[in-house]
Amino acid sequence: MDGARAAARRCTEELARGELRGPLHGVPFGAKDIFYSAGLRTEAGSRVLAGFVPAYDATAVARLKAAGAILLGKLHTTEFATFDPAPTHNPWNLEHTPGGSSSGSAAAVGARMAAAALGSQTAGSTLRPASYCGVAALKPTYGRVSAYGVIPVAWTQDHVGFMARSVEDLALLLQVTAGHDPADPNSSTERVPDYTGALTRRRAPRLGVLHQGFLDRADAEVARVTNDALARLERSGASVEAVKLPAHFETVYAACWTTVLVEAAAVHADLYRRHADLYRPRIREMVELGTLVPGDLYLRALRVRGRVRREVLPLLERVDALVTPTTPTPAPAGLAATGDPVFQAPWTALGLPTVTVPCGHSGSGLPLGLQLIARPFAEASLLATAGWCEDVLGRAPAPAL
Amino acid sequence: MDGARAAARRCTEELARGELRGPLHGVPFGAKDIFYSAGLRTEAGSRVLAGFVPAYDATAVARLKAAGAILLGKLHTTEFATFDPAPTHNPWNLEHTPGGSSSGSAAAVGARMAAAALGSQTAGSTLRPASYCGVAALKPTYGRVSAYGVIPVAWTQDHVGFMARSVEDLALLLQVTAGHDPADPNSSTERVPDYTGALTRRRAPRLGVLHQGFLDRADAEVARVTNDALARLERSGASVEAVKLPAHFETVYAACWTTVLVEAAAVHADLYRRHADLYRPRIREMVELGTLVPGDLYLRALRVRGRVRREVLPLLERVDALVTPTTPTPAPAGLAATGDPVFQAPWTALGLPTVTVPCGHSGSGLPLGLQLIARPFAEASLLATAGWCEDVLGRAPAPAL
Repeated sequence: MDGARAAARRCTEELARGELRGPLHGVPFGAKDIFYSAGLRTEAGSRVLAGFVPAYDATAVARLKAAGAILLGKLHTTEFATFDPAPTHNPWNLEHTPGGSSSGSAAAVGARMAAAALGSQTAGSTLRPASYCGVAALKPTYGRVSAYGVIPVAWTQDHVGFMARSVEDLALLLQVTAGHDPADPNSSTERVPDYTGALTRRRAPRLGVLHQGFLDRADAEVARVTNDALARLERSGASVEAVKLPAHFETVYAACWTTVLVEAAAVHADLYRRHADLYRPRIREMVELGTLVPGDLYLRALRVRGRVRREVLPLLERVDALVTPTTPTPAPAGLAATGDPVFQAPWTALGLPTVTVPCGHSGSGLPLGLQLIARPFAEASLLATAGWCEDVLGRAPAPAL
Repeated sequence: MDGARAAARRCTEELARGELRGPLHGVPFGAKDIFYSAGLRTEAGSRVLAGFVPAYDATAVARLKAAGAILLGKLHTTEFATFDPAPTHNPWNLEHTPGGSSSGSAAAVGARMAAAALGSQTAGSTLRPASYCGVAALKPTYGRVSAYGVIPVAWTQDHVGFMARSVEDLALLLQVTAGHDPADPNSSTERVPDYTGALTRRRAPRLGVLHQGFLDRADAEVARVTNDALARLERSGASVEAVKLPAHFETVYAACWTTVLVEAAAVHADLYRRHADLYRPRIREMVELGTLVPGDLYLRALRVRGRVRREVLPLLERVDALVTPTTPTPAPAGLAATGDPVFQAPWTALGLPTVTVPCGHSGSGLPLGLQLIARPFAEASLLATAGWCEDVLGRAPAPAL
């Protein structure tokens, strides 16, 4: 915090002299504790990394700082960004989970402790907690934002994610962090368009609603709030049609988990051999299961992922975004688990960009979200669509703390 | 053969009219029987594919045809391009193996049945048989020549290879087949330089000889012939220095075989489940072993490959080519096995371009080769170096048949 205070003082002085570091001059943000931060402990919620202080910033952290943003501090994560919960509570109801694995990121933005936060998503770790905590979030296309300096979960599905109070802020965060990074072998060389400019071109979008496997799988309350939100969007001019997924779409779940288990086992093999006793039960189970999956099954999982992706891409050409509830239920009660990533996992496995915007509340006052899914590298149009929806649905109010 | 005769007649007529299809107008070539060939059986040396006739040509076959070359026919391969031998003999001594897996390709060019042949190399399947049969061969950089329509062995190591009587012919073959192919996801977009033109810029090269693991592992006869050849090259002006490999270089062998086993198991999983009884013992063993390797071990093998590659690349900057004997022994006696790919496997696993040129004969008259290894996508300079060596060492005479 002392470093952040000093940085804030410098920003104030610069501003007084008419100097601006960049579009995020002085904006306070937090980073999930799997992002390397020079001089600050980075422990990934695990006793295995207790006291580890990296010498450099993750690329996403470095680019936010270069744009003028101030790193307030590190935010709690489930252990190694998987399933053993963080000590974080949901700011809307302290008896409920904030979600995971980016628990601290969602809670910090939801509770207005930071204007923005970096999270990550390997299955459902950014959009799910964001929705549970009533904030907007973006998971860009795979490779769009460098994952260099982010402790990996499963590198073919690891995405940097953003949380903020508005779609406009998400666009700003993406604008300053997107772009090729030679330090990340999976970083894309795709051109970076004008994301913030695209927001000024909001127009009533064509939305494709997914019923089977999504709206049909949500609880009654989520289904009601989602349908209400869709009706409001339609009344405001959006075209809303039902879209049917390919017959074998559900195979992507098995492909996603096989991939995550095997890659997580490979990531942790050395540390786990030396420090198995320090791992908590769920990450432990993942690593041990992962070492049992034969290599050819892993390769077949990658092929299934590729095949489902080829089948899904044409559906995305016909609409501005596919739409689902962001989660099948509001944030579950209790802190022993972090909720179900089932509505995010397919899009993460397919590497597609997704956004969640708040869309209402459950009867008990917990926030709910609408998930929008778009074509690869179509973040500009996705954010414009999300911004239009946000205009109709309204931003979530702050929780009463 | 009737199709080839008709094509030859058309080429003759066109030539009479002054028409030239391309730089290989009328040149007869053969293709290893894992290359798809429209209307011609493609059986990969296996009963599993008996009678299979593809509807289209592999990209390499199509590009050779487009350059005017005439596909004479398909050439024997070991079963699925691995280790169960083809019914092919070595044209220099019918009691000896021609090597594998591109057995027919090497024997056909060695015996002057075809001017050129397509082979493939996943461990040592092009350069080893070429050397055993006294011909020149090129395995380009991974991704340089499209593998579309080539039945895979292990796709992260599968390379199309070329065999011919001279380095100049190898350059011609590469020139007309290199270049991006959107149908092959691993095809490189690297610019295609003027390979044939580069041959005119031959000059005495800097050669780095690998002793440990290579020259030291060759039998006495191979070592003597190799050292004689190196002495002749040095007397003609080449600089010849000993180069030491990185300490952990040998780990690349385990990485190579782990990768091949797992990917081969993934390739064959479906066919093997239905037709296990039709598989011969060695490919059978590979598929069964491959299904036992855990996925995280496979991923670690890929990491080892990447790490050794990063350590080897700087060595390649200091010389025009690294040099080894192409094989540790001349073609072994007997047809039950196809010889040892140990001198090729590392460079195949690392995706580096390699050439073999004939460099002498064993006491019993079997041909031996010199293997040259270069930087990724440095085929132009590699071929110029190989051409210079060929000028000094002489082309191999035809075997007495």
